[in-house]
Amino acid sequence: MRVAVLGTGVVGKTIADRLAGLGHEVIVGTRDPEATLMVEETDRMGNPPMKRWLEEHPAIQLRTLPDAAAGAEMIVNATNGAGSVEALRSAGASNLAGKVLMDIANPLDFSRGMPPSLSVVNTDSLAEQIQREFPTALVVKTLNTTNASVMVQPETVHGGDHTMFLCGDDVGAKATVRTVLESFGWTDIIDLADITAARGSEMILPIWLRLMGALNTAAFNFNVVR
Amino acid sequence: MRVAVLGTGVVGKTIADRLAGLGHEVIVGTRDPEATLMVEETDRMGNPPMKRWLEEHPAIQLRTLPDAAAGAEMIVNATNGAGSVEALRSAGASNLAGKVLMDIANPLDFSRGMPPSLSVVNTDSLAEQIQREFPTALVVKTLNTTNASVMVQPETVHGGDHTMFLCGDDVGAKATVRTVLESFGWTDIIDLADITAARGSEMILPIWLRLMGALNTAAFNFNVVR
Repeated sequence: MRVAVLGTGVVGKTIADRLAGLGHEVIVGTRDPEATLMVEETDRMGNPPMKRWLEEHPAIQLRTLPDAAAGAEMIVNATNGAGSVEALRSAGASNLAGKVLMDIANPLDFSRGMPPSLSVVNTDSLAEQIQREFPTALVVKTLNTTNASVMVQPETVHGGDHTMFLCGDDVGAKATVRTVLESFGWTDIIDLADITAARGSEMILPIWLRLMGALNTAAFNFNVVR
Repeated sequence: MRVAVLGTGVVGKTIADRLAGLGHEVIVGTRDPEATLMVEETDRMGNPPMKRWLEEHPAIQLRTLPDAAAGAEMIVNATNGAGSVEALRSAGASNLAGKVLMDIANPLDFSRGMPPSLSVVNTDSLAEQIQREFPTALVVKTLNTTNASVMVQPETVHGGDHTMFLCGDDVGAKATVRTVLESFGWTDIIDLADITAARGSEMILPIWLRLMGALNTAAFNFNVVR
C-alpha cells in the first residue's frame, strides 16, 4: 500500500519505519522539507535528525504535505495534535477525499504546564474535528493510547497481550486499519464504534501520562480483561 | 473500622454490603432516611428496595448524612457525582474533618444524552472539587473506574489480575485506602500521586462506557501491563 505519514516527529518516524519494513511504500510529509532537512538535533528518543534518518531509510521519501498525500492510498496523521487540522488543510482536502485517514495524534495542550491537559475534550475530540473538516475522508482513530514504540511493536510489552482501540464511521476503513494493526502485532483490537468514541480514547491520555510518571516508563499499556 | 457509606444506590449498597461482610461497622447515610425507606422499586441491578435490603443486612444501619458521617472513622462518597459536593455539605464539614474520605463517584452529566459526558473535566475533577470544599478531609480517589460488583470482588474478572488506581494528597489516607482495597481482593494498586491525578481516573469513564457498549458487559477492567 502507498502510505503517506504526515509528521516527522518521533511518532511519524517510528510508524514510517515500521510500515516501510512491512513492505509498504512510505512517503513522509512535512510542511517544509528543506527546513526539516536543516534540523541538526536528534529527537527526544535519540533518533537522528531527518537528513541522516532518511539516509538510513533509503526506501522512505520526504515530500511536502500535499505531495505526500496526493499519491497515497492511506494517510497517517502523526502531526502534533495542536496543529493537525491546519496540517491536514495544507495537505489539501482533495488529497484526503475518499481515503483512509488513520488519526493517531492527541490534542495535548502544554500551555498550562505539565502534565499537559487536552485542548479538545469531553463532548468533542480531535478525530471528530478532523472528520468534520474533511467529511469525505475516512477517519479512523487508533494508536493514540500508547507510546510510539509500543504502537508498532506491541510484543515488547507483556508479550503483546494488551489492547488497542479503534473507532470511526466507515466500516471498510476500520477493516483496513485493523489489518495494519494486526500486521504490527496487535491481537486484541476493540472497535469502540463511531468516531465520537474518539472522545474516550483521547481522554485516556491524562491517566496515561500519570501512569508514565508512577511507573517511570512509557513501556506499558492497558489490557482490557473480561 | 466504623465506616459511613454515603449514598443508597447500587454502588452504595454494594460497597456497604462488602465492608460489613469484612467485619466493619457500616452506617449508610442518605439525605432523608424516611423517603429512602418509602421507595418500593428494586434498583437497576435488581437489588431490593432499601427497606427490604436493610432487613436482609441487619448489621447495617441507615441514618441521615450528618448522623452517618459524625461517628465514622472513614467516609465513602458513593453519592451521585452530580450531587456529591452538596451531599457532603449536608453531611457537614466538621464531620469530615481529618477523616479518610474515599471518593468513588463520577461526575457524569446525562443532560446531553447517552453516553453521558463529564460535568467536571480536564483541568479539574470531582475529587479536587471535594478536596477544595473540605480542605481538612483526607480525600482519596479510587474505585470509580469499574462497575460496583468488580469494585468489591475483583476476582470475578480475569481471576482478579487487573489494576486499581488511587490518588490523593495524604500518604496515610492512601495507605488506609490501600488496605481496604487489598481486603476487597485488589492486588495491583497503582498510586497515581496527588489528588489532581483524579482528572485522569475520572476521564477514563468515557472509554469505559464505550467499552461497556462494545463488549456488551460491565464485567471488565483495565489491566495495566508493563
